[in-house]
Amino acid sequence: MARRVAVIGGGSSGLTCIKCCLDEGLEPVCFESSDDIGGLWRFKENPEFDRASIYHSVIINTSKEMMCFSDFPIPAHFPNYMHNSYIMDYFYMYADHFQLRPYIRLQTKVLNVIQRPDFAQSGQWDIETEDKDGKREKHVFDAVLVCTGHHCHPHLPLKDFPGINTFKGKYFHSRDYKSPEDWRNKRAVVIGIGNSGGDIAVELSRVTKQVFLSTRRGSWILNRVGRNGVPVDMILTRAFRMIMPILPFAVLCNIGEKRLNERFDHELYGLKPKHRLFSQHPMVNDDLPNRLISGTIKMKPNVCEFRGSSVVFEDGTIEDNIDLVVFATGYTFSFPFLQSHVISVTENKTQLYKYLFPPRLEKPTLAIIGLIQPLGAIMPISEMQARWATRVFKGLSKLPSTSNMLKDIKAKEDSMAKRYVTSQRHTIQVDHLLYMDELATQIGVCPNLLWLFLTDPSLWLRVLFGPGTPYQFRLFGPGQWAGARQAILTQWERVVQPFKTRSVLVQESGHSHLPLLLSVSAAALLSTVYFNRANMSSFLPDITSFLERLKSHLPLPMVRQ
Amino acid sequence: MARRVAVIGGGSSGLTCIKCCLDEGLEPVCFESSDDIGGLWRFKENPEFDRASIYHSVIINTSKEMMCFSDFPIPAHFPNYMHNSYIMDYFYMYADHFQLRPYIRLQTKVLNVIQRPDFAQSGQWDIETEDKDGKREKHVFDAVLVCTGHHCHPHLPLKDFPGINTFKGKYFHSRDYKSPEDWRNKRAVVIGIGNSGGDIAVELSRVTKQVFLSTRRGSWILNRVGRNGVPVDMILTRAFRMIMPILPFAVLCNIGEKRLNERFDHELYGLKPKHRLFSQHPMVNDDLPNRLISGTIKMKPNVCEFRGSSVVFEDGTIEDNIDLVVFATGYTFSFPFLQSHVISVTENKTQLYKYLFPPRLEKPTLAIIGLIQPLGAIMPISEMQARWATRVFKGLSKLPSTSNMLKDIKAKEDSMAKRYVTSQRHTIQVDHLLYMDELATQIGVCPNLLWLFLTDPSLWLRVLFGPGTPYQFRLFGPGQWAGARQAILTQWERVVQPFKTRSVLVQESGHSHLPLLLSVSAAALLSTVYFNRANMSSFLPDITSFLERLKSHLPLPMVRQ
Repeated sequence: MARRVAVIGGGSSGLTCIKCCLDEGLEPVCFESSDDIGGLWRFKENPEFDRASIYHSVIINTSKEMMCFSDFPIPAHFPNYMHNSYIMDYFYMYADHFQLRPYIRLQTKVLNVIQRPDFAQSGQWDIETEDKDGKREKHVFDAVLVCTGHHCHPHLPLKDFPGINTFKGKYFHSRDYKSPEDWRNKRAVVIGIGNSGGDIAVELSRVTKQVFLSTRRGSWILNRVGRNGVPVDMILTRAFRMIMPILPFAVLCNIGEKRLNERFDHELYGLKPKHRLFSQHPMVNDDLPNRLISGTIKMKPNVCEFRGSSVVFEDGTIEDNIDLVVFATGYTFSFPFLQSHVISVTENKTQLYKYLFPPRLEKPTLAIIGLIQPLGAIMPISEMQARWATRVFKGLSKLPSTSNMLKDIKAKEDSMAKRYVTSQRHTIQVDHLLYMDELATQIGVCPNLLWLFLTDPSLWLRVLFGPGTPYQFRLFGPGQWAGARQAILTQWERVVQPFKTRSVLVQESGHSHLPLLLSVSAAALLSTVYFNRANMSSFLPDITSFLERLKSHLPLPMVRQ
Repeated sequence: MARRVAVIGGGSSGLTCIKCCLDEGLEPVCFESSDDIGGLWRFKENPEFDRASIYHSVIINTSKEMMCFSDFPIPAHFPNYMHNSYIMDYFYMYADHFQLRPYIRLQTKVLNVIQRPDFAQSGQWDIETEDKDGKREKHVFDAVLVCTGHHCHPHLPLKDFPGINTFKGKYFHSRDYKSPEDWRNKRAVVIGIGNSGGDIAVELSRVTKQVFLSTRRGSWILNRVGRNGVPVDMILTRAFRMIMPILPFAVLCNIGEKRLNERFDHELYGLKPKHRLFSQHPMVNDDLPNRLISGTIKMKPNVCEFRGSSVVFEDGTIEDNIDLVVFATGYTFSFPFLQSHVISVTENKTQLYKYLFPPRLEKPTLAIIGLIQPLGAIMPISEMQARWATRVFKGLSKLPSTSNMLKDIKAKEDSMAKRYVTSQRHTIQVDHLLYMDELATQIGVCPNLLWLFLTDPSLWLRVLFGPGTPYQFRLFGPGQWAGARQAILTQWERVVQPFKTRSVLVQESGHSHLPLLLSVSAAALLSTVYFNRANMSSFLPDITSFLERLKSHLPLPMVRQ
């Protein structure tokens, strides 16, 4: 049974891996190549080699209640969408609270991770590391958690842009962008409409003479501020997310696209893609429509050529006197310290069982953590992966046979190919809550809705008709956390708290949630039964008492408590 | 009869005054104290004495189709909400197209405007000016148009902030704010929640460690981007604006506030004021909710004291280590070159008949142009005022007796006091289209809806159920412009044009405007009749042919043509 676990990387995934190892009684050693924890989220003025680098103003695009680790809520007074400095504060608090620092070896780079000769029996790994003074060290580990993320190498496809060598302005990859000051009254082209491209275009547009935002496909644009100002990722309830897979794809897309077009017509604004809403990783950008309607940003098709200081677009238009081109063309990932028979990556495609486990190892003692691109927060997913992986390492959870794992991988690849636009952005795409549930089922920590319904209807209501916050996966099964219930009951309080910096005369609103609650209750009963595959008769006698309890909790504040 | 007209100030109001004088065969001479036209809208790195000054990034908050002069549409490719540099371009184009420049004397300051001894007969004015070399000159004019605006003197109420003399950081009025670079990682307080306060807070928040936005009352916040991405000031139709005055105030406010709260809950975000939506000049800010949800801006109540580098707020909270305080506390206006018996101003209050004419002059040969704060664009209002004033100067339009003018002023003051929060921001408040109609009626240039309905239903539909664009006031009466009809028919094309920088696959939408059109048609018929006070029988025979015509124009693209 595995005892010593190497954790490679001290970013958000690495931190929670250390913690999950400790929870399972394993001995983690985390190797972090830089001089501090935080990975991607640590702002540095000068980017480091083979490491993502963020700009000053980066604000995360998942809200604090959705992105936190499941047993460590983000402080109530922290903002709902955190600036990178707040995220680092949270990581430090997490590391300190769970005393993770002693297990981290900073400025230690992992050179090789090689199966030991007796791997088929022992499942052990030889690991070679190098410290900042160039001193190499060899280690033996029982298992390995790879937490190097998928923002490793800037993807700079210059070969796709003829004439770039003639370009007279400055150009760089988005990782080298830090702040807009140098570009006052200049003309800039930003290539790529991912989150970085959008953020950088918006920020530049406040100082430049003109920004052109170039995109091949266009994109659907989400806003952090959802309807009524609620964090947008908290609007979809667990109930809705659970029925999403059984709704026709086109219907789902129609609903979502209609809502997004209400904010601004994506066709009018030159952003509408040919593909549907859920066929692409969407862009989150709060300010883009404002910058487009003021013309400070102009949408453009793909760049086909550079000519001196001119940029030629695919529609034949030419923009002259361009001073700056930012390639917001994303990142690629690789695992240079691993042998190719363990894991190989081609154009961001790789084969991992449920995005974690190389399927062909004789022993399941290595997992890749955080190699997913969720429609939602990545941190709680990394945590869930780590919870599962550590239990697999200990033998408490069994993986299927290699052939079954390969079948599952193939099925996922096919469904991905069917749904998503072909792009190296869409190789590791997962639906947040569905994937969380899928992993949770492996560990046995999915919230038991029927049990909640019968024993704790107030909590049941919040779990089923509230956002799928990570605390839900600490209510049941291994790794239960006594604070989980309270964390769910108070999650909206933590949303409201950071806004309470100016008191407002509160008027009693005339709205009651009663009609909504009653109408959803019927649906809820059915879906609870359906998803728990329970016998209807087993809970019918409890309905009366349930309705009594429900009544005692009304009016239930769905938004504010 | 007046011949020579002095125009004091070469900003947006001054320019259109010159043009209106020329249209009426008068001889304008425009005195502009600075070295160029444009007034408020001309960006200068260093503010000039007694003159408003804008920051680099200012974008106007009225859309181009609503803010343009009525016979000079803003170029189709200009953005819908223009950066100050575009506004200057438009002013230059206007000045060049109508050959206004020969009438402008730059760097010439008006020192005195005094009634001539024979004023009671001649209505003439003695004007003394001073050029940049200090050379003084005396002139006689038949009439005067005062276009110095209401952003003259920064209002910096330091006496309301005890301890400001102990403040260790830097503080200044919003007019001295130019750009945010100097404040990276600093902590700033912005006092005042007008448009400048909001803009500056948002811009600072992208570089500072923290911005606190302090407000006594809170505010309702509008977004330039209206539903579906349409410029928000183009959403209300003339029909709706015409029935607004007969709807109960509370109902109107409810409708508007509900919509604004859908974008973000003003109570949750600490912005909700005690007063209703239409009781205050609203703030237009596109990015504020995004900055509040990310906590980069925190709302705060009024500042009650400064203590060294700390700022004490009225709720007792204290923020330490404040590096910067921006007083976005507005402007006051005055007319130092006019005698107090002509016009006197106390706390931004003055007495003018329909905000133009001093009511006690023996001859109506002086008018103040642009001294209004509309819920909408100011330029077309200044133009309409100038059209009226020049006709009054020529004797083609008569003013009522002094006592009747005073009665009208009193009635407006009372209605203002009833509706608006008491504040020196709310002394010159007007409802855009209602006020335009009120002035247009004086000149006889209100669109004749019944005539349009009978003769040009396609245009009638657009006038009544489209936005109240300024071209509508060039269809009838004195100053008709042959291009007005076409300008109205193509107004939405000019909205769409600047977005057309990336072509999007256009899918035929399944939406038809037929149900909407049919349902509004009945209401339209009634309101047309009502507002034209016409005899119902006079147009009944035409209904059949009207419906035929209507049908031939369906489906009418309400947004895009």
